[in-house]
Amino acid sequence: MQLYDLDLSGNCYKARLLLSLIGQRADLLSLDLRAGEHKQAAYLAINPRGQIPALVDGELRLGDSQAILVYLARRYADESWYPLDPISQARIASWLSFAANEIHHGPATARLGKLFALPVDHDAAHSKAVAALRLLDEHLAEHRWLAQGSLPSIADIAVYPYVALAGDGDIDLAPYAHLHGWFARIRALPGYIGMPGL
Amino acid sequence: MQLYDLDLSGNCYKARLLLSLIGQRADLLSLDLRAGEHKQAAYLAINPRGQIPALVDGELRLGDSQAILVYLARRYADESWYPLDPISQARIASWLSFAANEIHHGPATARLGKLFALPVDHDAAHSKAVAALRLLDEHLAEHRWLAQGSLPSIADIAVYPYVALAGDGDIDLAPYAHLHGWFARIRALPGYIGMPGL
Repeated sequence: MQLYDLDLSGNCYKARLLLSLIGQRADLLSLDLRAGEHKQAAYLAINPRGQIPALVDGELRLGDSQAILVYLARRYADESWYPLDPISQARIASWLSFAANEIHHGPATARLGKLFALPVDHDAAHSKAVAALRLLDEHLAEHRWLAQGSLPSIADIAVYPYVALAGDGDIDLAPYAHLHGWFARIRALPGYIGMPGL
Repeated sequence: MQLYDLDLSGNCYKARLLLSLIGQRADLLSLDLRAGEHKQAAYLAINPRGQIPALVDGELRLGDSQAILVYLARRYADESWYPLDPISQARIASWLSFAANEIHHGPATARLGKLFALPVDHDAAHSKAVAALRLLDEHLAEHRWLAQGSLPSIADIAVYPYVALAGDGDIDLAPYAHLHGWFARIRALPGYIGMPGL
């Protein structure tokens, strides 16, 4: 397997983290993003959206960090990371949408503006982040893990990085007591790895 | 089953459309959105995000239109709508993220601004919509269906509504020749139903 990767990307870190947790490895490939290599034909043939990460495994070329988690879990992991029953798959899908929408446009976008000085609407990202963090914190007041009560799943891996990195976007995590316990549970998983900023 | 529903919502229509295509039915319940009923405690106990649609089936309370498609397909449909193999699940997950992110913040947001006069950044939504429609059109130049070559899946049902409704947001669909063939294939499926605007 090869993973097109960037060390500072929380989306790439989702894939690296799950690989480590399930004891698998991929060769990490880098792109020259400043030179726009991710928008050139060779890479667009791998991921037409021109985003990182992308995973190559045999004939498969797969973009989208949530989709990469689904693939790695179904193909290489213990079933508990993405169980097959309808309710578990639906609950996990709900958190994957939350990662692709609320988390991406909240704390992840605030971080892009502050850490990489990209032109984003920081006020809008900040208010989306606060709404998303409140919702998460309320959920974690009653659940140890996001989608399954007793076990972690790819839902936790999809949501964790940009929430834990929210400080990079000047978002204060102090008010959300239950988030910190969840961070600690994730960091205690066998095989856990961090990334720059965590 | 009960579905909290609004006839003009493309997200609710995703659930209604899949129910009809798989020959299942749900009681449709409405909320008084103008009075903020979706942000009150009784509904937040069903869907903490305060959004429609939400599905109630026995003990299950499930929000998020993509997650509802996953649940209905896994629980009630022929496996072809959401196959269990890793590659199909990953490809479909990639399109569900696309629906939750690019389609939601592109054509769906442009429509919210024009049709419901909500305060949105129309220029940003328009440019995201154009990028998303181009990508879709290129994909459909080479594929009959989004995630599986020969059969429709919940990926098509998640992406179709707000793409087909893009005209409501003053987005011109004429340049995208391959989209129209895909629309026609979806509309020819046994059990297809439309919604206002389609």
